[in-house]
Amino acid sequence: MASLTAEQQGEIEAARTAEGRTRRPVAPGLEAMLFEAIPVLDHGFVRVVDYMGDDAAIVQAARVSYGRGTRAANEDRGLIRYLMRHRHSTPFEMCEIKYHVKLPIFVARQWIRHRTANVNEYSARYSILDREFYIPEPEHLAAQSSSNRQGRGEVLEGAEAARVLELLRGDAAQTYDHYAEMLNEDADGTPLDASRQGLARELARMNLTLNTYTQWYWKADLQNLLHFLALRADSHAQHEIRAYAEAMLRTVEAWVPMAYEAFRDYRMGAVTLSAQMLGVVRRMVAGEAVPQEGSGLSKREWRELMGMLGRNV
Amino acid sequence: MASLTAEQQGEIEAARTAEGRTRRPVAPGLEAMLFEAIPVLDHGFVRVVDYMGDDAAIVQAARVSYGRGTRAANEDRGLIRYLMRHRHSTPFEMCEIKYHVKLPIFVARQWIRHRTANVNEYSARYSILDREFYIPEPEHLAAQSSSNRQGRGEVLEGAEAARVLELLRGDAAQTYDHYAEMLNEDADGTPLDASRQGLARELARMNLTLNTYTQWYWKADLQNLLHFLALRADSHAQHEIRAYAEAMLRTVEAWVPMAYEAFRDYRMGAVTLSAQMLGVVRRMVAGEAVPQEGSGLSKREWRELMGMLGRNV
Amino acid sequence: MASLTAEQQGEIEAARTAEGRTRRPVAPGLEAMLFEAIPVLDHGFVRVVDYMGDDAAIVQAARVSYGRGTRAANEDRGLIRYLMRHRHSTPFEMCEIKYHVKLPIFVARQWIRHRTANVNEYSARYSILDREFYIPEPEHLAAQSSSNRQGRGEVLEGAEAARVLELLRGDAAQTYDHYAEMLNEDADGTPLDASRQGLARELARMNLTLNTYTQWYWKADLQNLLHFLALRADSHAQHEIRAYAEAMLRTVEAWVPMAYEAFRDYRMGAVTLSAQMLGVVRRMVAGEAVPQEGSGLSKREWRELMGMLGRNV
Amino acid sequence: MASLTAEQQGEIEAARTAEGRTRRPVAPGLEAMLFEAIPVLDHGFVRVVDYMGDDAAIVQAARVSYGRGTRAANEDRGLIRYLMRHRHSTPFEMCEIKYHVKLPIFVARQWIRHRTANVNEYSARYSILDREFYIPEPEHLAAQSSSNRQGRGEVLEGAEAARVLELLRGDAAQTYDHYAEMLNEDADGTPLDASRQGLARELARMNLTLNTYTQWYWKADLQNLLHFLALRADSHAQHEIRAYAEAMLRTVEAWVPMAYEAFRDYRMGAVTLSAQMLGVVRRMVAGEAVPQEGSGLSKREWRELMGMLGRNV
Repeated sequence: MASLTAEQQGEIEAARTAEGRTRRPVAPGLEAMLFEAIPVLDHGFVRVVDYMGDDAAIVQAARVSYGRGTRAANEDRGLIRYLMRHRHSTPFEMCEIKYHVKLPIFVARQWIRHRTANVNEYSARYSILDREFYIPEPEHLAAQSSSNRQGRGEVLEGAEAARVLELLRGDAAQTYDHYAEMLNEDADGTPLDASRQGLARELARMNLTLNTYTQWYWKADLQNLLHFLALRADSHAQHEIRAYAEAMLRTVEAWVPMAYEAFRDYRMGAVTLSAQMLGVVRRMVAGEAVPQEGSGLSKREWRELMGMLGRNV
Repeated sequence: MASLTAEQQGEIEAARTAEGRTRRPVAPGLEAMLFEAIPVLDHGFVRVVDYMGDDAAIVQAARVSYGRGTRAANEDRGLIRYLMRHRHSTPFEMCEIKYHVKLPIFVARQWIRHRTANVNEYSARYSILDREFYIPEPEHLAAQSSSNRQGRGEVLEGAEAARVLELLRGDAAQTYDHYAEMLNEDADGTPLDASRQGLARELARMNLTLNTYTQWYWKADLQNLLHFLALRADSHAQHEIRAYAEAMLRTVEAWVPMAYEAFRDYRMGAVTLSAQMLGVVRRMVAGEAVPQEGSGLSKREWRELMGMLGRNV
Repeated sequence: MASLTAEQQGEIEAARTAEGRTRRPVAPGLEAMLFEAIPVLDHGFVRVVDYMGDDAAIVQAARVSYGRGTRAANEDRGLIRYLMRHRHSTPFEMCEIKYHVKLPIFVARQWIRHRTANVNEYSARYSILDREFYIPEPEHLAAQSSSNRQGRGEVLEGAEAARVLELLRGDAAQTYDHYAEMLNEDADGTPLDASRQGLARELARMNLTLNTYTQWYWKADLQNLLHFLALRADSHAQHEIRAYAEAMLRTVEAWVPMAYEAFRDYRMGAVTLSAQMLGVVRRMVAGEAVPQEGSGLSKREWRELMGMLGRNV
Repeated sequence: MASLTAEQQGEIEAARTAEGRTRRPVAPGLEAMLFEAIPVLDHGFVRVVDYMGDDAAIVQAARVSYGRGTRAANEDRGLIRYLMRHRHSTPFEMCEIKYHVKLPIFVARQWIRHRTANVNEYSARYSILDREFYIPEPEHLAAQSSSNRQGRGEVLEGAEAARVLELLRGDAAQTYDHYAEMLNEDADGTPLDASRQGLARELARMNLTLNTYTQWYWKADLQNLLHFLALRADSHAQHEIRAYAEAMLRTVEAWVPMAYEAFRDYRMGAVTLSAQMLGVVRRMVAGEAVPQEGSGLSKREWRELMGMLGRNV
């Protein structure tokens, strides 16, 4: 993978080979993918670098509340599903995971809005950022949606698409080259031109564009991770952050398969009905033909409800 | 240890014997004490049930900021000390630990003020609390301090001490017996008196005294744990919560020895001088005899400063 | 109201009379009830002591995202409903409220689990708690539910109810009297018996029962307050904390009427359907008679769904 | 001020003129500057748009712990200073403030690391960013420090400075023009070229440089605000974020003058001595000439200590 240096790739191989003994709970599915970089976008990746707990840890925490008694294995699944369905969130907080992520700055800006996580980001005050930018694949060059200000419309084609790619590539390359010129140092810190001092790194970085890649360690508990994924693996999320969320969903499936299944059923695939929507559904289930007018729902809510029920309007 | 049932003790033994293989970082010192209950107070305990990360994880997170370059092992210690001294807190957030704690309710009420942790507590809505209360050792039966409203004075003696212990023991026993009577069920949920219904658990619990023991799982990152310990292992903390904090300090020392050493030097043993205090110290170091009057410090601050400098006033 | 001293009542009157001028947004409905204690349970209360923001502040924050353009007043309501329906939570965080609450300790223990709030509680390390305990009204003396370990069953009657009240009253009075005896001081701090020292307050408090009243200032943003109320004004919440939540709902209605209405429709009265439940509903709306068997729902989930749809099973 | 549109300026004037009546605490010093934009950098500003509480609210919260008793006004100051000195943080959490800030994106990225605040940022997914970039004043065009990787060295001069400004200005202008071209719409949303669709806003924004201005509402409690200011008004903070912190310090002084004074004395002007440093100071105060060698301090720590004591090394 182009986004990892040979040195990094070597470190990952070494870490994957070394094995120790532990008395802690082990999640075999996640051990198998530990440290390995899952490619995302053109130069990014997500990789799990540590974790704590498993499905059994969720059950154990929930059972502190229940006290004595042992239960058969299939009851673990039922309890986890019950907790997820009724939004009993604290047992899921007992599992923790840490990722190493490489991502464009504009994606990092969306991501960081989720405050309940621990973050250590590569600092462009101290260090020089690599010459890597996100350039969308042609099939993701979407036009602005005319109906929805947040969404994307059709894919740009022909000359317009070519021009966009040319501008993105050209500006990223040029601003990076000027960044390097202002810094006046190569990768080892040697001045390029001994007659110049070089601008402070903390200032020079302001010339970079928002598709420049950065990286960070990001650590969260399972409850907050699932909340993040519910929002960011959703169809309304921007394609670029959703690509990361989908890669992370695979790590959750490998780590806590029961919690993952419950999350799929009760969160990702779930819908919420307002009091008024529920009233309409009750009437429809009773065989009544309910018109939008007089239903208590606005046209927008009506469309949303019919969408949930799989009906065209 | 009296505070664990035979069943619990058996589970702990089983967990301590089972060992798995992992690619994750392993902290050998903490593995050795994993699951084992450290006795605290008369019936309480603290035990580590899981952890994530080690000293190297702190260093790794800090070095994301610095980029390339390898460093010798002794520099890890220097970097951790630098981070602690300058309160760079995010790298310490990359380590996480989970405890199982048994503690009196009034201690739990102090402890829960620390909000940045994950907690699952034994629920007296669902379950019946055990018949266990904290009764202080005679040497901890302190009188109210006359000079400091928060602190303890001398130890009570003779008849007064005996009377206090008699009251604490008698009231805890009586209120618990009435709790059981109101519940009208034994440990298996069988009614004691078939002619009665039994009060709801969520109500009956209100008759228990604040020295009744409860238990919880408590999970925090190292940064927040150290903040908790700086406050609760301090000489101004109430003896009972301090006993827990001191047991936890031993687990931190076993887990992240470099971070522990830095914490001892730069947080536990450190003092903060105000702008005015620093001014006085500068003059004293220059050989000047500075009187309190005109020093810019109140009498209280002056006493605090002289205390720091090891001078009697 | 018995739970406020004459002195406190006087301070409240003074605060209610004093009026100042401000350029900040003012919520007239809440101004009218500011400082006034709403009685809860037998000796408790909730009162609003400060607030920040109103419905317009929610709209203003949401529109930072939208940029230019003015909108008619009725669109404010539509926007707030849209935000609530789609769980866009950050605009609701722009409003803040501070309560002064008097509540039994066992209720405080449930309440404090909500970590995203600021709390200053009356400290029994420094001060002496008042001689006030919560004793339930006879109609709230519920038996333990036999079907649901968390819930309440029928109301206790006759001799059993009388015995419960006698035990609760007797034990609270006795443990408080012994608390006072151990402290050996009256309300002004004068020793009751000059031959004794008096036990430290931080220790004596452990003899109190969990129905003793405490008090605190509790401050939260509207988003977190609504989350608290969604859980605690719910029919599954324990009656005693629900009584506080319902009093607080009235303050929210007076403060941010549009947000309150949206909260009622989209959160309090809403239901969530899992992917499988939604599949069943789609089939039922299409006129199909769906049996539980083979529906993909467990019996428990089926009962929950039929309950939502208003059908008996 | 160039950074506010005429329309915004009109709204601010209107808000400043309108006055309502309130029973809430009023902070007269802050009322006087409410809504007014304090200019920061070349196009940015900070303005207070709402607040809650004052010095008296801090005292009130602290005194919940102390119970009965009235105190004279000068004791309020003493109590606030005591709380600040001993890091009793919860009373300061009882005050809340909301700012509207316009700032370059690279500053926003530093700022957002402070997680304990509420934020609503202008969204470039929905809206089009203005054509405004931060270009440093010549006296802030610092070279990279050779001794300290995070810091700035001397100011660039002559041809090098001119070249840096030319690059920053040119690249910001060009990338913005290409952003506008890709969007293919003017400020009203009308297509510039009817034959093109225009790239989705959420994608086009990635072409902007990190010195582009964004804006947000940022709300925090006083405790967290002071923590932010202690870090960001510090001499080690990057000049650009420090400019915002200094403007905010003026609003804190106007709002809670007693807390501000205590913050200046006990936080901004304070120093922390490690256990080893304290040992050295004790010996120096006793008249001993202590050499670095054998002092228990590293050379770096020794320099730090001598710096605190005002001694050259």
